[in-house]
Amino acid sequence: VSGPLVYLNGLMVPAYEAHLAIYDLGVVMGAIVTEQTRTFRKKPFRLEEHVERLIRSLQLARIEIRLGKKELLAISEKLISHNGSLLAAEDDLGLIHFVTAGQHAAYGGEAARTTPTICAHTFPLPFERWARKMESGVHLITPAVRQLPPECLHPHMKCRSRMHYFLAEKEVQANDPDAWALLLDQDGNVTETNAANFLMMKNGVLISPPLAKILDGISRRTAIELARHAGIVFTEKDIRLDDISNAEEAFLSSTGFCLMPVTKVNGVTVGDGKPGPIFHRLIELWSKNVGVDIWNQITQRAKSLPRS
Amino acid sequence: VSGPLVYLNGLMVPAYEAHLAIYDLGVVMGAIVTEQTRTFRKKPFRLEEHVERLIRSLQLARIEIRLGKKELLAISEKLISHNGSLLAAEDDLGLIHFVTAGQHAAYGGEAARTTPTICAHTFPLPFERWARKMESGVHLITPAVRQLPPECLHPHMKCRSRMHYFLAEKEVQANDPDAWALLLDQDGNVTETNAANFLMMKNGVLISPPLAKILDGISRRTAIELARHAGIVFTEKDIRLDDISNAEEAFLSSTGFCLMPVTKVNGVTVGDGKPGPIFHRLIELWSKNVGVDIWNQITQRAKSLPRS
Amino acid sequence: VSGPLVYLNGLMVPAYEAHLAIYDLGVVMGAIVTEQTRTFRKKPFRLEEHVERLIRSLQLARIEIRLGKKELLAISEKLISHNGSLLAAEDDLGLIHFVTAGQHAAYGGEAARTTPTICAHTFPLPFERWARKMESGVHLITPAVRQLPPECLHPHMKCRSRMHYFLAEKEVQANDPDAWALLLDQDGNVTETNAANFLMMKNGVLISPPLAKILDGISRRTAIELARHAGIVFTEKDIRLDDISNAEEAFLSSTGFCLMPVTKVNGVTVGDGKPGPIFHRLIELWSKNVGVDIWNQITQRAKSLPRS
Amino acid sequence: VSGPLVYLNGLMVPAYEAHLAIYDLGVVMGAIVTEQTRTFRKKPFRLEEHVERLIRSLQLARIEIRLGKKELLAISEKLISHNGSLLAAEDDLGLIHFVTAGQHAAYGGEAARTTPTICAHTFPLPFERWARKMESGVHLITPAVRQLPPECLHPHMKCRSRMHYFLAEKEVQANDPDAWALLLDQDGNVTETNAANFLMMKNGVLISPPLAKILDGISRRTAIELARHAGIVFTEKDIRLDDISNAEEAFLSSTGFCLMPVTKVNGVTVGDGKPGPIFHRLIELWSKNVGVDIWNQITQRAKSLPRS
Amino acid sequence: VSGPLVYLNGLMVPAYEAHLAIYDLGVVMGAIVTEQTRTFRKKPFRLEEHVERLIRSLQLARIEIRLGKKELLAISEKLISHNGSLLAAEDDLGLIHFVTAGQHAAYGGEAARTTPTICAHTFPLPFERWARKMESGVHLITPAVRQLPPECLHPHMKCRSRMHYFLAEKEVQANDPDAWALLLDQDGNVTETNAANFLMMKNGVLISPPLAKILDGISRRTAIELARHAGIVFTEKDIRLDDISNAEEAFLSSTGFCLMPVTKVNGVTVGDGKPGPIFHRLIELWSKNVGVDIWNQITQRAKSLPRS
Amino acid sequence: VSGPLVYLNGLMVPAYEAHLAIYDLGVVMGAIVTEQTRTFRKKPFRLEEHVERLIRSLQLARIEIRLGKKELLAISEKLISHNGSLLAAEDDLGLIHFVTAGQHAAYGGEAARTTPTICAHTFPLPFERWARKMESGVHLITPAVRQLPPECLHPHMKCRSRMHYFLAEKEVQANDPDAWALLLDQDGNVTETNAANFLMMKNGVLISPPLAKILDGISRRTAIELARHAGIVFTEKDIRLDDISNAEEAFLSSTGFCLMPVTKVNGVTVGDGKPGPIFHRLIELWSKNVGVDIWNQITQRAKSLPRS
Repeated sequence: VSGPLVYLNGLMVPAYEAHLAIYDLGVVMGAIVTEQTRTFRKKPFRLEEHVERLIRSLQLARIEIRLGKKELLAISEKLISHNGSLLAAEDDLGLIHFVTAGQHAAYGGEAARTTPTICAHTFPLPFERWARKMESGVHLITPAVRQLPPECLHPHMKCRSRMHYFLAEKEVQANDPDAWALLLDQDGNVTETNAANFLMMKNGVLISPPLAKILDGISRRTAIELARHAGIVFTEKDIRLDDISNAEEAFLSSTGFCLMPVTKVNGVTVGDGKPGPIFHRLIELWSKNVGVDIWNQITQRAKSLPRS
Repeated sequence: VSGPLVYLNGLMVPAYEAHLAIYDLGVVMGAIVTEQTRTFRKKPFRLEEHVERLIRSLQLARIEIRLGKKELLAISEKLISHNGSLLAAEDDLGLIHFVTAGQHAAYGGEAARTTPTICAHTFPLPFERWARKMESGVHLITPAVRQLPPECLHPHMKCRSRMHYFLAEKEVQANDPDAWALLLDQDGNVTETNAANFLMMKNGVLISPPLAKILDGISRRTAIELARHAGIVFTEKDIRLDDISNAEEAFLSSTGFCLMPVTKVNGVTVGDGKPGPIFHRLIELWSKNVGVDIWNQITQRAKSLPRS
Repeated sequence: VSGPLVYLNGLMVPAYEAHLAIYDLGVVMGAIVTEQTRTFRKKPFRLEEHVERLIRSLQLARIEIRLGKKELLAISEKLISHNGSLLAAEDDLGLIHFVTAGQHAAYGGEAARTTPTICAHTFPLPFERWARKMESGVHLITPAVRQLPPECLHPHMKCRSRMHYFLAEKEVQANDPDAWALLLDQDGNVTETNAANFLMMKNGVLISPPLAKILDGISRRTAIELARHAGIVFTEKDIRLDDISNAEEAFLSSTGFCLMPVTKVNGVTVGDGKPGPIFHRLIELWSKNVGVDIWNQITQRAKSLPRS
Repeated sequence: VSGPLVYLNGLMVPAYEAHLAIYDLGVVMGAIVTEQTRTFRKKPFRLEEHVERLIRSLQLARIEIRLGKKELLAISEKLISHNGSLLAAEDDLGLIHFVTAGQHAAYGGEAARTTPTICAHTFPLPFERWARKMESGVHLITPAVRQLPPECLHPHMKCRSRMHYFLAEKEVQANDPDAWALLLDQDGNVTETNAANFLMMKNGVLISPPLAKILDGISRRTAIELARHAGIVFTEKDIRLDDISNAEEAFLSSTGFCLMPVTKVNGVTVGDGKPGPIFHRLIELWSKNVGVDIWNQITQRAKSLPRS
Repeated sequence: VSGPLVYLNGLMVPAYEAHLAIYDLGVVMGAIVTEQTRTFRKKPFRLEEHVERLIRSLQLARIEIRLGKKELLAISEKLISHNGSLLAAEDDLGLIHFVTAGQHAAYGGEAARTTPTICAHTFPLPFERWARKMESGVHLITPAVRQLPPECLHPHMKCRSRMHYFLAEKEVQANDPDAWALLLDQDGNVTETNAANFLMMKNGVLISPPLAKILDGISRRTAIELARHAGIVFTEKDIRLDDISNAEEAFLSSTGFCLMPVTKVNGVTVGDGKPGPIFHRLIELWSKNVGVDIWNQITQRAKSLPRS
Repeated sequence: VSGPLVYLNGLMVPAYEAHLAIYDLGVVMGAIVTEQTRTFRKKPFRLEEHVERLIRSLQLARIEIRLGKKELLAISEKLISHNGSLLAAEDDLGLIHFVTAGQHAAYGGEAARTTPTICAHTFPLPFERWARKMESGVHLITPAVRQLPPECLHPHMKCRSRMHYFLAEKEVQANDPDAWALLLDQDGNVTETNAANFLMMKNGVLISPPLAKILDGISRRTAIELARHAGIVFTEKDIRLDDISNAEEAFLSSTGFCLMPVTKVNGVTVGDGKPGPIFHRLIELWSKNVGVDIWNQITQRAKSLPRS
């Protein structure tokens, strides 16, 4: 095959042949857990942790699969190796795993495959989408839509029943098309965006919402580890919107862009309105660790974008 | 084509060719709204109302499509006509509509179709699944998993971000494999099951949870209308679990089975533990309206089931 | 005196001499209740009801004053008569009453006047501020700041401890300088803006949030009465943001502008995005009642504004 | 000028000339932030921290002023120096700063000064009000009125929208005219009184409600520092009413009286019903630090009071 | 037997021999449901309704007994007949029913009687306790202790797990030894006292908290019926403390005293501070119905009380 | 006396003569605080701590008794000595203390004893009830009934107003007669069962819900101390149901059985479904401490039970 491959239920198929039945429970009731990993220079970053978290999500979702960690790692490596070789030098891959609860027995009829649907696929990381935000910082807006409470879905289960994220994005982008949504929980505490963890620097301390209330992000872990290496104290506590307004810096952590500066929240400038020194410090340390200048890899795409 | 057809993005395709891209936002973040209609003697029941509710859900989901009510009705009629002709005489069809937010631009790459994915398909109603419960009544258990609060998703939008329903079912079936989950809201009030509205008879009055907190079910509307014709007073109010224990009857309304008696809740017998007179009265009236003996259509399948 | 007068603690003083001590409890802890009335053709509108509500707010605030309804009416009439005569023909007055809890004994020292401070004053209604919004409708945004819960302050007491309104306005105007803030309560239900009640038309019915949760606005009462006269059914129920998105119309009622169309909420168009027929109908009826073309009085000021 | 001065918008004016316009937003909507500092032997105590907190409150209130920390300190020192020289030897000053959001544009008309109103003034600390309570301890009662939730106003912003404090005091004093109100939050946890932080000694540990839920009091900071110097462990945790009933001691910290013993809560004796040893220890340490016998300064005023 | 009798587990025993084992689950975990009925001229008032409510409470408590309504009525009549004959002419009886869940199997050992303990007994109504309050009205105080939420115990089950009532009374009586506790729910809405329902007259309408949140009191039903006969409109809605402060009247309904005027709430006078005309009207109607001057029967006992 | 004795209000009486009046406030409103201690080889375990907690509960319940710690200890020792001598060698005693608020004055009439009722009694520990669960682990189910919130009753007061526990057990046992109820609080966090604290091992750490939300169990303290001796880290944090599903082990601590393994929660297997190594380690350490093989003492009773 000359194009990228997708792993689907035991087979490696060309991407253009990778489909889900319309009867799949992933489609019918959003019963899907997922993971996203990325590569640096075509090598996966902390892949093992991502696979472990996938296994944990499956357990929380009460979905049992036959593949273990070893098999999942092997499939992942194989996809990265094949699909990575098709990329340009300056590009890197995002690797997605997802598992659904199988097909809906009544919709699918006798042919329904009720065992879990397991899929892994890749895509070139869309650096051009992040390029300008990486330079100038992103604007976060808190929508009226709130994060799901833990009595409904445990925040540590990375699943795809995320219509509320879709609505949250629509809501904030009606006010600012470039903004991202920062979701509050039902008590008004900051949680996360639909794709990233939130972190801030205040009085010289790196602060995160409590882990029990958010996804246990692997990029978040990385950021905290790097901060500790750099001698920065880290703590978890409830963050209110007003607490951000006089923070020194805020940023997001996520698999794709690693770290993204936040320079405005609900129209209020954070710090001096520019990506801050700790952000730069951490992205530099991260870059050293992985042998890729992360900042450059993303921001150089800004040149090819149309002027805004 | 000799088998059933599926409408998918403007085309009528054979069911075995109806797939979603793994990059579809319906798969990626559960961004799908849906409807389910049924036929009686192969004629759709209140199809227009279902299509109107689909349009309303799309509006709440901020998804815009090019098809209007008229087109959606035409597609529906065509599918029912073709696929219905393939069924046995005693069978009827379920008709599903669903619309996703389109494909994920970064995952799908240049080929991504970012306009909404529109699909309609049918399946034979699985009467055999309901046959024994229709005779003896269903056991509802309230799981620890709670219904999504309206600050996250509006209960009137029929969407498919329903992992919490999946978990609720798994939870209650670990205690009783035949039970269905009756979800409570965050205040402990009764809401609905994952596929049906809840109704009860108490002191001679038909009672439902307040409409603002539940799906505006079309079978629920039908049941209320029939009850009113039969001279039964209907009211809406918050229902607590304990309120069910001394109700005269309880039942569920849903597109597929119309009405289903509830004879046990959390292990406690409701009424005298048998499907009650109002249930029978309503299902009889409904049967007359549609020219199908609903009770017989479902319960006669019990004979072909293995002994439990 | 050639300029406007202000009533202050028993005296009529020139406006430029009307001050509060910096030790006044109104300043020190926001312990002030208030009212706002307006005139049509220099005659006060439902003044008696405003004065009655002031008395009721004083009772809720546990502030006792020596003036009764009769005296308050006399003062009001006198101010309107004198100050109204200074206005241009096309102008009208806003009349403010406020009462504070007196002066802070320790701050003020021996000279402190600890009996309530009573004040009434007027100002020309700022039609030019509303002119463009009256034509095209206002954009409401729901801020993260929430309305005070009734366990803190009863919503029927019109008081001036309203820093949260100040913050709410600042927050939404950071996103859209022309928007006004629509506050939600702690359950995510729509309440009111900082100066107006919210109303909407849905399925042909005029709907308001429940009176128990909002200010008992006198313009709201007027709107409801006019609607009833026009044969429009009125009801109260909890309104969620999503309920507005498919309403036919929405508008605000407030003393100054009477009714103001709402054509966008959180960036989503309401109805067809223009002031609707019921809005126009009600404002027309209102105009007839008071002998002033309210719409014209306000919108004609748009001509004198700089182009936006 | 022979009497005390007040700083008001750039000028030093005699106290009797210090007024606010009735159109000031501080009066119109309680949009004021504030600070209170005190002197010992006419020298300000931790003035710099108070000024820093004022700046922080301004930031949270989104009010910008032209004066920086240096200018605010200079104004403060000047007022203390001048006004302090007018006091008797045994007296000390309270110094108030407050900043409003400026004047209301429509009410004030063309003459409205819409830039912030900045004011600083002093008053002799009213020791006679605290004298008997300092000797025997204060009685705290929890009113039905609850503290404002952080979704409405951030507890770290010291503002004057405090009508609920006014009502809370009225409510408890209807039951006991000498009692002060101890406000609970919406979960029933202890927060603070209208003018002081709450602290208690339990099992030998000094305990405060969590800082995130209360004002970051500078007297509270002082008390904690002194306690630590005295080898007393300090911790923060949620305090319920019942937790106080078997505490060894409870006290309040506030700028004016520094520390005040609490000997009764809702009619229940705390500890042995007398000011306790830790209270005495801390007030003694504090007295040493500032060179004033705080206990004596306050309690000697009891002699001049009428017998109760 | 010359003294009063008690019904206990099938036997009529002299009152001095009526005991519960210390192992009874009523004692061990408060697993008791109960009823209280009263007589007028030694005839029971609405006894049948009380017995029906007892049966309903048993159902909610999942306790099954062998006695039906008929047997319970017979036992009750017998007790009233015998014990009533021992009373003075001006006295009347309170009749108590209670049923426990039986004895604790492990504590009681082999001898444990695990079937329900059923008891009925009487006592002379303590009119002297109510005499002064009936004349001048009672003072209600809202304690910090809140009513149990319905997620813990359904308010319609009259049970004896009421330690929180005991604490509520202790709390308010520490502030005013003559006050009774009016409990708020967790949202701050008025519910009931530990022994009576709350009612108020406002704008000429009789108002009660919603039935779903309180005990379905039989005296409350009586009061509502009498009011309706007297042409007074009745409605149910959430009542906040502040709503009482400007009510015309407030009163309590309870089996023993029928109606009791409330003239002060949290130290604030209700209405004009005296028992009001509607209270007098209703008690008069009630007296006619039962052939006893209820007001006289209670208040004449005030004469024999020591002067307060 | 040849049988066991009971302490009751100052006397040692034969167990068969130990009764409570039906007018006791313990019976009338569940106003009882209590303790349970056990013996090992007829010697009480941490009796002093139990008595201290009883005193603390009395203080929270505002019940004052004349007996101090010393007298309570003496009574306890005497009961254990006498009643313990009547037991078989392999048996041990449970010792119960309880104190009620005295008798109800109106129900009891002139003879009512309104001072607290104080009682202490013993019973042979019912090892046979725990034997099979000790071997295979217990199944916990979370009922819809929730734990009382701290605004109603403080969790540290061990009282007997526990109807909700009775209902919780009934609810879960309707689904599985062998299951015990694990109560959630109103936020959905795990609290405790009706008679035991909950603990779990996760990632090698021993975790408990926060002490502020549960009974301060003395067996819990023991388990934590033993764990610390064994080098196991202990921490407190909110536990959600889903957090248990991938714990390594879970167990309950309670006076009677010391520790009890939990192997299923809501039908989901915990760990590998068997009592785990930490459970065994702790029970072994505990056994050494008290000189009794706790596991054997309980499980050997399984032999004498009928086959299930």
